[in-house]
Amino acid sequence: MNNFKYYAPTEVIFGRDVENEVGSELIKSEATKVLVHYGGQSAIKSGLLERVKKSIEETDIEYVMLGGVVPNPRLSKVREGIEICKEEEVDFVLAVGGGSVLDSAKAIAYGAVYSGDIWDFYDGKEQITSALPHGNIITLAATGSETSSSSVITNEETGDKVGVNTEYGRPEFTLMNPELTYTLPPYQTACGIVDIIMHTFERYFSPGGVNDMTDEIAEAVIRNTKRYGTIAMENPDDYDARSELLWSGSLSHINLTGLGRVGDWASHRLEHELSGMFDVAHGAGLSAIWGAWARYTYEEAPERFIRMGENAWGLDLKELDKKEAVETMINTVVEYFKTLGMPESTTELLGRSLTEEEILKLADNASKAGNKTLGSFKVINREDMINIFRMSV
Amino acid sequence: MNNFKYYAPTEVIFGRDVENEVGSELIKSEATKVLVHYGGQSAIKSGLLERVKKSIEETDIEYVMLGGVVPNPRLSKVREGIEICKEEEVDFVLAVGGGSVLDSAKAIAYGAVYSGDIWDFYDGKEQITSALPHGNIITLAATGSETSSSSVITNEETGDKVGVNTEYGRPEFTLMNPELTYTLPPYQTACGIVDIIMHTFERYFSPGGVNDMTDEIAEAVIRNTKRYGTIAMENPDDYDARSELLWSGSLSHINLTGLGRVGDWASHRLEHELSGMFDVAHGAGLSAIWGAWARYTYEEAPERFIRMGENAWGLDLKELDKKEAVETMINTVVEYFKTLGMPESTTELLGRSLTEEEILKLADNASKAGNKTLGSFKVINREDMINIFRMSV
Repeated sequence: MNNFKYYAPTEVIFGRDVENEVGSELIKSEATKVLVHYGGQSAIKSGLLERVKKSIEETDIEYVMLGGVVPNPRLSKVREGIEICKEEEVDFVLAVGGGSVLDSAKAIAYGAVYSGDIWDFYDGKEQITSALPHGNIITLAATGSETSSSSVITNEETGDKVGVNTEYGRPEFTLMNPELTYTLPPYQTACGIVDIIMHTFERYFSPGGVNDMTDEIAEAVIRNTKRYGTIAMENPDDYDARSELLWSGSLSHINLTGLGRVGDWASHRLEHELSGMFDVAHGAGLSAIWGAWARYTYEEAPERFIRMGENAWGLDLKELDKKEAVETMINTVVEYFKTLGMPESTTELLGRSLTEEEILKLADNASKAGNKTLGSFKVINREDMINIFRMSV
Repeated sequence: MNNFKYYAPTEVIFGRDVENEVGSELIKSEATKVLVHYGGQSAIKSGLLERVKKSIEETDIEYVMLGGVVPNPRLSKVREGIEICKEEEVDFVLAVGGGSVLDSAKAIAYGAVYSGDIWDFYDGKEQITSALPHGNIITLAATGSETSSSSVITNEETGDKVGVNTEYGRPEFTLMNPELTYTLPPYQTACGIVDIIMHTFERYFSPGGVNDMTDEIAEAVIRNTKRYGTIAMENPDDYDARSELLWSGSLSHINLTGLGRVGDWASHRLEHELSGMFDVAHGAGLSAIWGAWARYTYEEAPERFIRMGENAWGLDLKELDKKEAVETMINTVVEYFKTLGMPESTTELLGRSLTEEEILKLADNASKAGNKTLGSFKVINREDMINIFRMSV
């Protein structure tokens, strides 16, 4: 087993009505003035924001509101939030929404205590060394951002979509009420399911020796997500299914599924280029690219695909030769994504084929014009990226 | 899924040589004077204590030493540690050893900032509301105390062995080097394996609805512990086996295996009476009592035993009727414990049968003279406890 560090200090409060505890959680966090950060109309229409305000108003804590976060959250909104925090002397950022809102809130928390421009952290010029404390009420089972160290922001001027990981990204608390996810449209539910599975795959398909406890948890997360994903798509109001998905989503990204492994993350990086260029949903982009990535790279360690197929996807692959066994596993995953209504190709994702020019641009962006490789399961260069994008059509 | 809270803020640093990072970890924890708490000769002979001292001496941090913790750690030693902390103005407690040392260190951390007697917390007179910060270097895969909220202390004057759980029991850090567990005698390794399995069973066999993510992780911990337990018994220096056991031990008690469940803990409480009265090893006591507890209570929910048997113990129970299926599962577990050299009965544990007088005394102690029940899977009263102790002979 490889050496590892594990640190996940976020307090998780899970269950019905837990959003009403936000006031007391903010008191525990010693907040005095909070930026409540949210997305669009759904948090207003559902009454969630009103309940949040009511809970805060029962304390002495002040708050200011900033809505309007969109999927693939944008740098301009982050800058707006940072300005408000500085002007209003905000000392806590509360995100109410899905992964995009949470990622935007984290970026605001970093920028609010920094004198330079927030993008410095995302383009690697500067390291994050402090942040406002932050917490969240999560409304979507997907990104795991509610407990993870990561935040992904899109610079809409350049089309760059970049993630940073820092221990300052760990929320102080997350309030997780599965009922808040009932009203998600099926497409977003499906995107979330793919994202949970992919957060686990990215860690599972990676080099490393014996890591069985980690692998066992990864396989358990996949089994559970697959099973309850199907149920939640059929019955959006199934409390148990929504609960299992929501908790699996956190576990998929809290790093328990990757301890002792380096992680691959090439599919994520290639998808970030897709959603940076075409503003597609992250989960759908992952669904469109993963099959091509897997078919291109599996020869590095076919036994990983076979183990995952047998332990988590209920496949009996013993009678097949390695190539057939892996193909069966990959096809099974892609077929599962299709049952959720997710695309199996970039052509299906975009409604048309990627042009050769677009493929070259995507690969140039992902490889920083050929200067950067991606992945660890198989290290891929610009040429490999072009091949994967071509195979994804 | 039932509502739950999950909070496990301990920083885990896992791998070869990580004990040498203790100095830098203490700096991060802002320690200025540390009580280094340990057990007997093994930490000295192995050179571990010297390495710990060396790492601390490379910082400006001062330290005082207190050794002599014994299994079933004693109140008198805790009181000695508290006195030292107060006299020497210690501001951090570092445990170097197994679960007993860690539990003793936690009690010292509670008592060092309390003006009354430490036993007040253990007999329920007072609630813990603060503690010195504490961390540990763990040398035994077993109790999970390195990340858990619990501490169990024996009052050697009364024979009472009592545990308390508090968020103040969460260590700031744990340094986990699997190599430190190579020199454990087989009996202690075996006790640890039983303890890991039992920490998971206590949570798994409990009332509650759908909790599949939790159950999946519990089953994974059991599968992994069983598998690598056998390997570690055969090859004590197998790094991967020792690694898997050590990490499984932490996961078994970090509460990921019990989220959304209340836990039963009757076997633990009955064992605490056994080891309080006879000073036997905790893991051996659990091995001696669990079969009787399981046979006495399984009718509450035989399907839990069948699921555990099929998913974690590799059993095919479909063709059997419920009673046979459960019996097969219980026998399989007890047989596994026997392969580790662990006792299957209290008679085997003690080398003689419990007397009827002893059984009554054990049940009286466990039930506070009939005033207290135990368990949640099946709530057991004094009469039930007597029956279970009788069945354990």
